[in-house]
Amino acid sequence: MTRIYDDPATFADDQLSGFLDLYSDRLHGVHGGVVAHRGDTPQVAVVIGGGSGHYPAFCGTVGPGLASAAVVGNIFTSPSAAQAYSVGRAADQGRGVIFSFGNYAGDTINFGIAAQRLRDEGIDARVVIVTDDIASADEVDKRRGIAGDFTVFKVMGAAAAEGRDIDEVERLGRAANAATRTLGVAFSGCTMPGESDPLFTVPDGHLGLGLGIHGEPGIRDVAMLPAAELAALLTDRVTDAAPAGIGRRAGVILNGLGTTKYEELFLLWGHVAKRLRDKGFEVVEPEVGELVTSLDMGGCSLTLMWLDDELEPLWRADAYTPAYRKSAAPLRALRPPNPHELADAEAVRTAPEATPAAARLGLTVRAAFDAAHRTLTEHEHELGRIDAVAGDGDHGRGMVKGVTAALDRLRDNESGVGGGWLLQEAGQAWAERAGGTSGVLWGAALDAFGRTLTDSAQEYPATAVAKGVRAFTDAISELGGARPGDKTLLDALVPFAEELESATADGTALVPAWQAAARVATEAAESTATLRPQVGRARPLAEKSIGTPDAGATSLALVVTAVGEALTVETERKRS
Amino acid sequence: MTRIYDDPATFADDQLSGFLDLYSDRLHGVHGGVVAHRGDTPQVAVVIGGGSGHYPAFCGTVGPGLASAAVVGNIFTSPSAAQAYSVGRAADQGRGVIFSFGNYAGDTINFGIAAQRLRDEGIDARVVIVTDDIASADEVDKRRGIAGDFTVFKVMGAAAAEGRDIDEVERLGRAANAATRTLGVAFSGCTMPGESDPLFTVPDGHLGLGLGIHGEPGIRDVAMLPAAELAALLTDRVTDAAPAGIGRRAGVILNGLGTTKYEELFLLWGHVAKRLRDKGFEVVEPEVGELVTSLDMGGCSLTLMWLDDELEPLWRADAYTPAYRKSAAPLRALRPPNPHELADAEAVRTAPEATPAAARLGLTVRAAFDAAHRTLTEHEHELGRIDAVAGDGDHGRGMVKGVTAALDRLRDNESGVGGGWLLQEAGQAWAERAGGTSGVLWGAALDAFGRTLTDSAQEYPATAVAKGVRAFTDAISELGGARPGDKTLLDALVPFAEELESATADGTALVPAWQAAARVATEAAESTATLRPQVGRARPLAEKSIGTPDAGATSLALVVTAVGEALTVETERKRS
Repeated sequence: MTRIYDDPATFADDQLSGFLDLYSDRLHGVHGGVVAHRGDTPQVAVVIGGGSGHYPAFCGTVGPGLASAAVVGNIFTSPSAAQAYSVGRAADQGRGVIFSFGNYAGDTINFGIAAQRLRDEGIDARVVIVTDDIASADEVDKRRGIAGDFTVFKVMGAAAAEGRDIDEVERLGRAANAATRTLGVAFSGCTMPGESDPLFTVPDGHLGLGLGIHGEPGIRDVAMLPAAELAALLTDRVTDAAPAGIGRRAGVILNGLGTTKYEELFLLWGHVAKRLRDKGFEVVEPEVGELVTSLDMGGCSLTLMWLDDELEPLWRADAYTPAYRKSAAPLRALRPPNPHELADAEAVRTAPEATPAAARLGLTVRAAFDAAHRTLTEHEHELGRIDAVAGDGDHGRGMVKGVTAALDRLRDNESGVGGGWLLQEAGQAWAERAGGTSGVLWGAALDAFGRTLTDSAQEYPATAVAKGVRAFTDAISELGGARPGDKTLLDALVPFAEELESATADGTALVPAWQAAARVATEAAESTATLRPQVGRARPLAEKSIGTPDAGATSLALVVTAVGEALTVETERKRS
Repeated sequence: MTRIYDDPATFADDQLSGFLDLYSDRLHGVHGGVVAHRGDTPQVAVVIGGGSGHYPAFCGTVGPGLASAAVVGNIFTSPSAAQAYSVGRAADQGRGVIFSFGNYAGDTINFGIAAQRLRDEGIDARVVIVTDDIASADEVDKRRGIAGDFTVFKVMGAAAAEGRDIDEVERLGRAANAATRTLGVAFSGCTMPGESDPLFTVPDGHLGLGLGIHGEPGIRDVAMLPAAELAALLTDRVTDAAPAGIGRRAGVILNGLGTTKYEELFLLWGHVAKRLRDKGFEVVEPEVGELVTSLDMGGCSLTLMWLDDELEPLWRADAYTPAYRKSAAPLRALRPPNPHELADAEAVRTAPEATPAAARLGLTVRAAFDAAHRTLTEHEHELGRIDAVAGDGDHGRGMVKGVTAALDRLRDNESGVGGGWLLQEAGQAWAERAGGTSGVLWGAALDAFGRTLTDSAQEYPATAVAKGVRAFTDAISELGGARPGDKTLLDALVPFAEELESATADGTALVPAWQAAARVATEAAESTATLRPQVGRARPLAEKSIGTPDAGATSLALVVTAVGEALTVETERKRS
């Protein structure tokens, strides 16, 4: 739907006036359209045009190396003969004018009349009509012109820029049209400015195969296809409609019709490119993007221009227009990074040699993650429910994803690996897979914890573990930017870390110290029910949150409690 | 809605793979993102990034003069620290890495971790966070980053390309961010690949003022505004949020969010540019188009970067990336066309001197158009009804628009002007205003009619009028490409022209000959009810049309009948 306008009746003129303001350093408005600034050497004027609503067709592709001028009609309406005549006359540089446009009755008549009027005044004027849409008719010369407009304009614009004469530019334009084939699909209709209903519709879950850029009937509606099948359909039908007797080099356009996003076009391009190569095509400087649109229509089209030695350099040539800019120079001196510069950072990481003590610590770390995984899985639903009170309800899911990724990564490590290394590994896996801010914080905190425990020590006293927990806490505090009292996991974590530090400093063994700290954390997590959130996404819903504990503090308490139990088991296992 | 995908879960990776295939001549895929090919002179690596779904942010603006690399997260999700680290490491050319991204918690944490890891390995790494969205917070450093990402990246990319060191590039990036302000509006929400419901919605007929690029809450919803008022709102709020103590030169971006069309942006730009100039701003090389999108969100944003002597050349500098290309060279040698080349074609047309006979003929032409206008106005509804049986029902409306435009133009001409000239004038006005193929044909045919009657003759015998009607008929036949029997106006026109020719050739006076021919035309028009359409838009509905006469043939018969009556009156007036 069109949202930005003043008076729908003057939409086409109003947008043209803004366009001309924007590009006043290179384009000039004349009655009926726009004319490009020119160089000192006169060239044949390639004057393109048609209705508005197809940007960048037509005024967006006027400039050096492409069209000399564009005639701009009302939305989806041919410009008048008087407009075409006026623009043609202004564009003429003494070497003649070629009008080029898609094959629609109104355009053919109006540009034809304008060409005749120019000839009557002694200006050589020709007409090159684009007929690329294979869906619109069996006979080539009855076909409509759609995105293949661009290949024909491009060839003629490049030929004119080379200084060729009007006979040559016309001949090359006809050759480009004869070598160009397009097939389009529409997913959804388009809506005229000021209207709320679309001009036409495509049935839900379907695509209109061959549907024209003004909603002209296509071949038929078919059920929507996965991208790979859509690519096959377009590629096969276009290549099956190949002009006779030419090879397998092609300039290719995958054109978006309006609301189909570039990301979608790139995804489709991946399949199209592969299929063309599988068919033996050499794809030459392909273009993926919007070149001929239809207001806010959803859909795309695939165009191939089969290249010979004459057309190829014209397709490759530089151009510089508002919407289409191509230059070989900036890329010429560049090279890919060296392979050693691209060495995958992850691949070069290898576990350091672990002391027997570090290897024993590794077993404890594995046991701790097993326990964390069990408790988080068991409480996933409950954590989600708490989070949903004032958040998006994904906390349980995110924690399970994180701990599962960590556990998978621990299993990828051999059994003799040290605990410090394993904590780093677990943290990196957690951060990559869990997603969201809490996933990143848990990941970074585990990584920091692991880095404090070098795997070269002969023993790991309880104070070393408490120091690791402090590093874990600091990482979350520094990276997350929250403070105690903000209703985050810090409200359970900070009391936990402090209790662990003070108990171990007093000489308490790890297991009882940890278990005591876990009880403190659990109470602190419960107390967060009285707090009001100060940071993060829960902040706008602060009031609703009062009376419910923080999900992040709760999950932290669950994890440290479960780890405390695992430490007991582990210690007894070692004793026995 | 996203239509093109295979598996929604792998959308971001799949689109990146197609993108890398397309630009394999200039970009290289690495773990976590893309790295640009590089020149022989090492430069500071400007590594941008964030979630996918914002194309061309972020991978579309990687290349000479802009970013060195982009880190590519999942849709609307921060890349992981490991991804950022990997891309940063691959992008480093020995002169250090600057990560730059919009201010979101996940990005800040992950890029921060990556920078620390690079520093741990001895690679100088910095972070420049973009905070341009004035709607998101009062405190500048808490603001989100939206389209102002681009100005910051552009300045750093240009500074790095100039060979400046990492301190300088970082300083200039911070200066660019400090000088940049953006405000956005959303008209409609966006939908994640694979989903059918949008992530959020904007109430119908409203716009979300300040709504973020992932649907974050804005300032408030306001009723949709006409373009001029929307431009005033955006311009005034952004300029009111100006950084302290700087002037009135600004690089400007009017950014489209996804489904807002370029035509709409151009229209809005016309208002924005004027308002900025009225406020005393010098607008420097503005950009209007998609630079930071949000999937298929509808909406736009206005960004100003206040320029000083240091930022301005960096904003103006050349760049060459997939989606953003700028080069001063192609425009440097161009100049606007000379004023005489742009003389409005219409303005130079003046009526030739008319003989007394031609002036009398002029009066007859005026009377004929009065009569045609009366009958077409009277039958407008009926012609519409006939046309609606197998067409779009606009024939009555189109004919009335055409004849009204013609009559207006005749009134603009002085009273002594000749009939030949007036017919040409009427034809040109008809063609310009009536629209559609029938309007063009009527216009061209009247023009051809007029050209056969030079206004220098001493008399205009009945055979001269018949010759003019023949020219009228030939023009329609040649331009329209239909033949008798195709169920068009030719089925009434050709019998009319033949009867008039044969009667006047036999010496019958104009009035009785015309009236007899009009009777023939009326019968012929009625007979078209038995025909099946062969051309034009009625063809697909051929069956439905049988039993109804052709609307174009019917209107022609009405016109020639009314003109016949007018000729009688006119002849009697002259006699009296």
